[in-house]
Amino acid sequence: MDEVKVIEIKKSVFEDNDKDAANLRTDLKKRGVYLLNLMSSPGSGKTTTLVQLINRLKDKIRIAVMEADIDSDVDAVKIKEQTGIESIQLHTGGMCHLDAEMTRQGLDNIPLNNLDLVILENVGNLVCPAEFDTGACRNAMILSVPEGHDKPLKYPLMFSVCDLVIVNKIDVMPYFDFDLEKCKEYVHMRNPKAEVIPICAKTGEGVEKLADWILKEIKNWK
Amino acid sequence: MDEVKVIEIKKSVFEDNDKDAANLRTDLKKRGVYLLNLMSSPGSGKTTTLVQLINRLKDKIRIAVMEADIDSDVDAVKIKEQTGIESIQLHTGGMCHLDAEMTRQGLDNIPLNNLDLVILENVGNLVCPAEFDTGACRNAMILSVPEGHDKPLKYPLMFSVCDLVIVNKIDVMPYFDFDLEKCKEYVHMRNPKAEVIPICAKTGEGVEKLADWILKEIKNWK
Repeated sequence: MDEVKVIEIKKSVFEDNDKDAANLRTDLKKRGVYLLNLMSSPGSGKTTTLVQLINRLKDKIRIAVMEADIDSDVDAVKIKEQTGIESIQLHTGGMCHLDAEMTRQGLDNIPLNNLDLVILENVGNLVCPAEFDTGACRNAMILSVPEGHDKPLKYPLMFSVCDLVIVNKIDVMPYFDFDLEKCKEYVHMRNPKAEVIPICAKTGEGVEKLADWILKEIKNWK
Repeated sequence: MDEVKVIEIKKSVFEDNDKDAANLRTDLKKRGVYLLNLMSSPGSGKTTTLVQLINRLKDKIRIAVMEADIDSDVDAVKIKEQTGIESIQLHTGGMCHLDAEMTRQGLDNIPLNNLDLVILENVGNLVCPAEFDTGACRNAMILSVPEGHDKPLKYPLMFSVCDLVIVNKIDVMPYFDFDLEKCKEYVHMRNPKAEVIPICAKTGEGVEKLADWILKEIKNWK
């Protein structure tokens, strides 16, 4: 099994997270690095989606991943083993989210100058991560079919702050009462501009569209 | 559609949550009311499980439900419509968990003297709710098959504080890489005494065993 770097990040001692986040975004812009903050519930398929996505993008752009979790390094190891790219594990010390300073502590441990894209896989949680600007260029989230199409009603902030909603596990749609049109309607109640991309990370269906979205984003950022 | 009471609960102004929780448990013991704190990720099937469970128990014991959510009242309405029992909605004002004082605010709005069992459906979140003792007699959680059997590795505290782990959506096990034996092994790494009960809330499979567990618990509590 590949060994991955595990970073124990500390809660920010600064109070002004919005300012830290704005500063981090400015730094990233100068370096030409695009940071995507990926959020979701536990078990929605973030890591599997990343593996599919990275394997489609890694010959075109230079990518690294930061995996944030309360504990364990299974996700960072999976990314490294199945894509070969730089992947580090951030341990949040029990914290349920990342803020901008914690994100910067992670970024300090990867060679930013050689990268086009860094993906931060945030802690699996639909509540707290939405409350903290990490300094990322964009927020994206994965909603998996088994969770149900009503989630934008119950977790309004998460869906308000995300520019991209990836609907994952569409292969099991026949076994669940998931209405994709209702889902889109609820997402757009929270954020009318949000893009909704249905995928199946297991089979790769729809991931090409996701890759195109990211390539276009990076082009506009640089 | 049935109307349900919606309570806007406030964050505790007291600092000592453990003391509040112990006091609440003592009060509940005196009144002979058993409070179960039910936690899980968003979309694991908490409300559907409760509907099945309550319809099996409501002729034997007197039950009420408190549904905690950031927003919406869909869960409280569903419980009321599909079981006919008392069901209230607690709005947490953006908070990602309930503490003992918030739980007490909810309990103040239901007729405790006429009840044997109150179920608190906590905010869908595997991180923060585990950190706060609500004053409940027991903690239970639902892990649904699509989330994966590795969750006890990533969310250690949640599985440490729960005495009962309900594995839901076992009907879709053939479509997911979910290993029930591995799941049990990981759960018992966190809490060797935890009971694991596999169910399918959609069809009702396994819910009888869950009902028996709760009846036994209530008998021991009184």
